[in-house]
Amino acid sequence: MTIARRLRLGMVGGGRGAFIGAVHRIAARLDDQYELVAGALSSDPQRARESAAELHIPGDRSYSDFRVMARQEAARADGIDVVAIVTPNHLHHPVARAFLDAGVHVICDKPMTRTVEEAEDLVDAVAASGRAFVLTHNYTGYPMVRQAREMVLAGELGAIRTLQVEYAQQWLTEGGRPGAWRTDPARSGAGGSVGDIGTHAFNLAEFISGLSCTELAAELTSSVTERPLDDNAHMLLRFAGGARGALWTSQVAPGNENALRIRIYGEAGGLAWEQESPDRLLHSPFGQTSRVITRGSAAAGPAAARARRIPAGHPEGYLEAFAQLYRDAAELIRSRSENRKANADTALLPDVHDG
Amino acid sequence: MTIARRLRLGMVGGGRGAFIGAVHRIAARLDDQYELVAGALSSDPQRARESAAELHIPGDRSYSDFRVMARQEAARADGIDVVAIVTPNHLHHPVARAFLDAGVHVICDKPMTRTVEEAEDLVDAVAASGRAFVLTHNYTGYPMVRQAREMVLAGELGAIRTLQVEYAQQWLTEGGRPGAWRTDPARSGAGGSVGDIGTHAFNLAEFISGLSCTELAAELTSSVTERPLDDNAHMLLRFAGGARGALWTSQVAPGNENALRIRIYGEAGGLAWEQESPDRLLHSPFGQTSRVITRGSAAAGPAAARARRIPAGHPEGYLEAFAQLYRDAAELIRSRSENRKANADTALLPDVHDG
Amino acid sequence: MTIARRLRLGMVGGGRGAFIGAVHRIAARLDDQYELVAGALSSDPQRARESAAELHIPGDRSYSDFRVMARQEAARADGIDVVAIVTPNHLHHPVARAFLDAGVHVICDKPMTRTVEEAEDLVDAVAASGRAFVLTHNYTGYPMVRQAREMVLAGELGAIRTLQVEYAQQWLTEGGRPGAWRTDPARSGAGGSVGDIGTHAFNLAEFISGLSCTELAAELTSSVTERPLDDNAHMLLRFAGGARGALWTSQVAPGNENALRIRIYGEAGGLAWEQESPDRLLHSPFGQTSRVITRGSAAAGPAAARARRIPAGHPEGYLEAFAQLYRDAAELIRSRSENRKANADTALLPDVHDG
Amino acid sequence: MTIARRLRLGMVGGGRGAFIGAVHRIAARLDDQYELVAGALSSDPQRARESAAELHIPGDRSYSDFRVMARQEAARADGIDVVAIVTPNHLHHPVARAFLDAGVHVICDKPMTRTVEEAEDLVDAVAASGRAFVLTHNYTGYPMVRQAREMVLAGELGAIRTLQVEYAQQWLTEGGRPGAWRTDPARSGAGGSVGDIGTHAFNLAEFISGLSCTELAAELTSSVTERPLDDNAHMLLRFAGGARGALWTSQVAPGNENALRIRIYGEAGGLAWEQESPDRLLHSPFGQTSRVITRGSAAAGPAAARARRIPAGHPEGYLEAFAQLYRDAAELIRSRSENRKANADTALLPDVHDG
Repeated sequence: MTIARRLRLGMVGGGRGAFIGAVHRIAARLDDQYELVAGALSSDPQRARESAAELHIPGDRSYSDFRVMARQEAARADGIDVVAIVTPNHLHHPVARAFLDAGVHVICDKPMTRTVEEAEDLVDAVAASGRAFVLTHNYTGYPMVRQAREMVLAGELGAIRTLQVEYAQQWLTEGGRPGAWRTDPARSGAGGSVGDIGTHAFNLAEFISGLSCTELAAELTSSVTERPLDDNAHMLLRFAGGARGALWTSQVAPGNENALRIRIYGEAGGLAWEQESPDRLLHSPFGQTSRVITRGSAAAGPAAARARRIPAGHPEGYLEAFAQLYRDAAELIRSRSENRKANADTALLPDVHDG
Repeated sequence: MTIARRLRLGMVGGGRGAFIGAVHRIAARLDDQYELVAGALSSDPQRARESAAELHIPGDRSYSDFRVMARQEAARADGIDVVAIVTPNHLHHPVARAFLDAGVHVICDKPMTRTVEEAEDLVDAVAASGRAFVLTHNYTGYPMVRQAREMVLAGELGAIRTLQVEYAQQWLTEGGRPGAWRTDPARSGAGGSVGDIGTHAFNLAEFISGLSCTELAAELTSSVTERPLDDNAHMLLRFAGGARGALWTSQVAPGNENALRIRIYGEAGGLAWEQESPDRLLHSPFGQTSRVITRGSAAAGPAAARARRIPAGHPEGYLEAFAQLYRDAAELIRSRSENRKANADTALLPDVHDG
Repeated sequence: MTIARRLRLGMVGGGRGAFIGAVHRIAARLDDQYELVAGALSSDPQRARESAAELHIPGDRSYSDFRVMARQEAARADGIDVVAIVTPNHLHHPVARAFLDAGVHVICDKPMTRTVEEAEDLVDAVAASGRAFVLTHNYTGYPMVRQAREMVLAGELGAIRTLQVEYAQQWLTEGGRPGAWRTDPARSGAGGSVGDIGTHAFNLAEFISGLSCTELAAELTSSVTERPLDDNAHMLLRFAGGARGALWTSQVAPGNENALRIRIYGEAGGLAWEQESPDRLLHSPFGQTSRVITRGSAAAGPAAARARRIPAGHPEGYLEAFAQLYRDAAELIRSRSENRKANADTALLPDVHDG
Repeated sequence: MTIARRLRLGMVGGGRGAFIGAVHRIAARLDDQYELVAGALSSDPQRARESAAELHIPGDRSYSDFRVMARQEAARADGIDVVAIVTPNHLHHPVARAFLDAGVHVICDKPMTRTVEEAEDLVDAVAASGRAFVLTHNYTGYPMVRQAREMVLAGELGAIRTLQVEYAQQWLTEGGRPGAWRTDPARSGAGGSVGDIGTHAFNLAEFISGLSCTELAAELTSSVTERPLDDNAHMLLRFAGGARGALWTSQVAPGNENALRIRIYGEAGGLAWEQESPDRLLHSPFGQTSRVITRGSAAAGPAAARARRIPAGHPEGYLEAFAQLYRDAAELIRSRSENRKANADTALLPDVHDG
């Protein structure tokens, strides 16, 4: 069955003032593939209701209990096709289970779960459900990240030898800063900066290189005495096939706002990309001049072309990259409903196995 | 009357494959203040209908004649609140007139009209209608452009002495390239690069400096023999109060994708901004080190804060800046309906007088 | 006669504390082609003597009168081969005449003279003397400037259409700043910023493009009431063959230390160079990605290779570029003594006709 | 005894075509504190003689045996004050010993020796000789490196937490490239990229931070099968006081010419410096905007001011930084001869203990 209409989207978490919930909604809206029709935006009923009203969600589709939402939406003829999970980390697993079990596709913020046991359970649940599970490793949605991956896989760098990847922020530089659940092991899981942002860096290294990291040695530090979780980490990485790398993640590096960067070097060339200037990819073919491949330029290949909206020189950013995952997820969900092969980009979507 | 719902938006122009129409729609969607419910997307009925269907516009609200659309939408209880005009330049005037006369607010792509006569007529029509008229000089929606303006107006640069503004592209470097209506005087108006992009540069200089250009000397060039309109222009500018400047616009400058840049210098400091790295504003207070003000950082003031969506380090781009005008226009339209003072940012909206 | 030894250099001007005199001496020393053996470093005898002693110039070759110096040095068997003139502008002409008439080669700081009459007189004097006259338009000594010229002349940009050149500084931003003879018309000549730095920008545009500027329209401004000379200027330029350009020069642009920049665009590509990052030349062949040509890389051609000292990645700067003119001048002077053709780079030396 | 004259310099190694020897000579010449009067430029007598002649060294002071040179120069009334050692690494120790034993000051290229035993022997020899021993860790001569050190020691960053340092090159990317003695363990010592460039990075981290590295974990890689030494290395570093860091060094990273970079973060701010843009230091005080401190600007403190030659905006580079060590070494040598305290900058000179 072809779904000509927009996909019906529900959301769990993301009530008033929540950052990532708002981002997911913009991402869903940007390419006009979804309409938000239901939500359990808060476990507090009044806050849930008020948040829903602001988002033009009908009152009867505002829930405070995600299990009730899963059940009732699954029972409606016009029920949601897909749910976006944007709760604190410890709820990712139970919410995902509830919706998968109800036959609803899932788009889940990262990290997928807090524990390996939960992760394995989710792998099974996804398999049993036959539903799509998309994990929003959102940085993989940038056109030039996909361009980089495409170039590496096409052999333009030759065999990969070295990867330098880092994700630096400054916001935890001072002690005493709340940081809410992100620095609380119970809600955030065992990783501090490693879990919060290191996962993005690690994922990016594997995504672009197409290589699996097989061994690592890490040094985790907490710079502020009273902070229970790491806020800085250095790692040595070994990849299948012999490539070596290093990863640095920090939330105590003044001057770094959201500095996710990767450099990757092979026998025949190098690539460098920085999230804060996402439209540019530096390519250094060995023995030639370095060249700047821009999003939308002729030098950018088909993978980048499919992940952009506007021409070269008109900057796209974080929201567009996030929207790309929603765009690809829509294609994946539609293809299942229509019983056809999904397009190639859906293979780039992080799924339950990446989680 | 408070409009709690989304504003109902119509569109004239912007059928399949049109670039700027798609941009307007994304901009309207991004902040969730509008829903697109009607359109005369093409003057060809079938193309109009097919384009409308793709955008989930009901069949009975797809028009091929903008005058019919204006009349019928004005007559509906659920008629559009506002129309977005994204046609070729020569239609801006008649379409705007039709909707203003029907009592519909107007958001119009630039340049406003082809001739001074049309422009003056529109000024009168807006005044008579009591409706909002917003001209999408979209680069004024960038947070750091607003930050720059705010700093200049607050006197942080002292009296302005010098402005360097430029807008360089490369796409007309080779002759024989179609360029469609943009290089056709009948449809585009008398200006080539000057009208197409020079207007943005000129507007930006006045917007940030708060100064009016009172005199100019220009040299317009057509680099390709068969091209009837200018593709490169240099200008000397004089501003009220004594500031001097230069403007360069070119569509034959290889290596420049969409390089709109401005530098402005006063007695006490300088500012520099580039559209291709829109989240950064370089501020050089005289006698001190230059500093980089980033969108979302503590150094960015309230004007920038109101024009952003996500924190520092997460890039925003062209679509977000465009959406900002739609966001501000929504506030302006709502405030009129609600008979209240609009917020301060609406004063930044380019209107019929800027046109 | 082959001069295997170092060339014997004299200097007029450049006593204690003088900036440009010290620069000339370092430039002369860098490539080990000169030894400084005589000087009229000041018109004040004691200051001349003390300055000379610090520079290891023998007491009997320290002069306070340049005419005496010219006469006596010309008479010595071990007299100077060449004199460097680093006095205030108004002395350039009489000093150059004195040494040319005495048969001594001349290296002269720019601007060559204050008036056209002086300039024409010098042209004649050089012709009559048979001596080399080198004007230190020092920015032409940068390897990547020579690379740019070589690429333009080889046709890599196709026919040139547009030049943007600028030279911005900040040091005269505040009024009341002395600026000594540079803002005094009697000693500096009729041009303020135009004469002091605009000449460099203008010269660079002609040097790289190989084109002569045939017409210009200029607006000169003095930003500070009590300042008699311009401190900011905008110009429209027309070049032989039809290229158009703009020049901006300013000494009241906060944040600009010594920002000499040029961009040049032709039918087939563009180039951009900035003096503050002199080892990099951005090349944008139309239709391809922009590439960064670095000094010492394989992409840099023979002209750049002959003008560098150390490998790629080891920055060279202002002193090395200045030394390049001394290196080339040494070759020119030796070739005359040896009655042989000088190497190709000597053709790049600014001479009395450039002045 | 005051040495008003230039210091008499000898050189061992550095014959025709040698890179680092030429660099040492330029560095010695730049500030006019030395004259080169003797040399054992090659162990091949004819090559030594021809090289000497090109450098205007008198024939009787050209040697082919460094031991003879040490003995004979020490015996002359006008013998050399100081020797520069620019031989392959395995000769550093015997040459240094020979001249120290003869009472001659030593300036030695790095790495100091191949083995710990040699290093300890040299420490003793220096102590016994009473002569200056300067190791040319030349990157410490950059004004902005000294500025960084000064800021860190003044506490502007607070307690240091994290250091990221790297030195990347590309020249060994391809196998089969000779690389001469640098990839030959017998002549180069046990370290490949680690010894050749990693030592610079390591030294820079300690120099700027003022911290000693107490522990490290390293992974060394040889990317090309037939290469006996490492060409890429990643290290985790622990510093006294608790700071953590990472070091990456590579000679197989395409696109990197000579990319020595350091970033250092403390409780109160961060600094970033790149050797290829040496005149700029990025300072990020926490909670404020990042600012660019340029060499020669008012924001640069006394340490930078003493290590520069020309004003802001006129780039200095590698040769000037190298010359700084020669300038400081001249002061150190003169102060000993004059029996006075040397100036503060001499404390920055790398000595036998750094080696």
